[in-house]
Amino acid sequence: MNAGLIVAAGKSERMGPTADKAFLNLGSKPVIAYSVIAYERCPDIDTIVLVVRKDRVDAARAMAKIYGCAKVLKVVAGGASRQVSVANGLDVVGDETRIVSVHDGARPCVTPQLISETIAVARKHGSGVAAYKITDTVKHVERGVKVTRTMDRSKLWAVQTPQTFKFEILSKAYEFVKKKKLSVTDDAQAVESIDGEVRLVPAPLSNMKITCPDDLVLATILLGL
Amino acid sequence: MNAGLIVAAGKSERMGPTADKAFLNLGSKPVIAYSVIAYERCPDIDTIVLVVRKDRVDAARAMAKIYGCAKVLKVVAGGASRQVSVANGLDVVGDETRIVSVHDGARPCVTPQLISETIAVARKHGSGVAAYKITDTVKHVERGVKVTRTMDRSKLWAVQTPQTFKFEILSKAYEFVKKKKLSVTDDAQAVESIDGEVRLVPAPLSNMKITCPDDLVLATILLGL
Repeated sequence: MNAGLIVAAGKSERMGPTADKAFLNLGSKPVIAYSVIAYERCPDIDTIVLVVRKDRVDAARAMAKIYGCAKVLKVVAGGASRQVSVANGLDVVGDETRIVSVHDGARPCVTPQLISETIAVARKHGSGVAAYKITDTVKHVERGVKVTRTMDRSKLWAVQTPQTFKFEILSKAYEFVKKKKLSVTDDAQAVESIDGEVRLVPAPLSNMKITCPDDLVLATILLGL
Repeated sequence: MNAGLIVAAGKSERMGPTADKAFLNLGSKPVIAYSVIAYERCPDIDTIVLVVRKDRVDAARAMAKIYGCAKVLKVVAGGASRQVSVANGLDVVGDETRIVSVHDGARPCVTPQLISETIAVARKHGSGVAAYKITDTVKHVERGVKVTRTMDRSKLWAVQTPQTFKFEILSKAYEFVKKKKLSVTDDAQAVESIDGEVRLVPAPLSNMKITCPDDLVLATILLGL
């Protein structure tokens, strides 16, 4: 069994003080619906778990029903950080799961094909994480907008989601970071903390994340809405 | 006098062995035409210098004429690296220049407004470099696609162009790197090498660079072609 774990429980400070970006409108659907539909349509995914804000659990269930996403078996409340939200999701994914594909609900341009590619690499290597090689020059900025130095970009990749792993590896990694009280920014970093191998899967720049109002405009264009 | 210096003399290895990406078709115009038109339309730009491959000098002149870009006063041949190409351009920009705005011809989605913003910041602080704060997690990859560690993304900005400077600063910086035989990836790094202040100007992700065939598709969408 392969599970999709779609996380959309975060704060959206750049969208306004009370906004929940997962439920903002993008074309005719809420942002999160696009990811859920992509996972529903991916032939390599058997079940989907959604992690949303506590006050959105019912809305998320209704959304899955409206868009005919029958693979959505569980909708659970997230926590104060992405890390806690993913852990909450992993708790209910189910023991029969072999592969778990974690995805940010704020990346609506994900495709069933990209999900499948990360699953194929995770099956072989334990992990398959969507990422792109950074082609722009990267500057280190100590504070504000003054550059302190230029990084060696040839070694830098920006990672996105899906971040797909063998379930036993990801669940061991999340137990480890919880026990050690480590804070991680993504699932790959949790796996890095147990010295697990993290393999990158080249993904398009168009698999962007919605973080500010301008991104909604860009996503509308990219999705052809 | 404020000059635009548009550089499009590079190799385009990811586009095929002999491709010159500046002259690939994007909608009905060559890629480079979009940047030239944006500089032409920017009210803060007085003159434009184009730096192209030696075998494209005539084609670039004809292109400027076709699209009515009357500010294009000089078209010169570039060198083996971006650094040499920019230096060639700076040589002909002219002594009456106060501000020079360097731009990659492979970024067709630049707008007159963004050019003006970098000029305003450069007037005040000596430099104004288009950049965006990296919102994706960044991984360090020693070789291939295996992650070695996670970077602190809160301090990382990806820089684009326009990179705009007071002419005296940029020209001093390029003289310095030439004399010291330093190799720099962008204009900001040249200025960093003389301990000049590099100020970043927040720019949209849509000001992307064409590096591979997929990017042409993305640019077509972003430009509404």
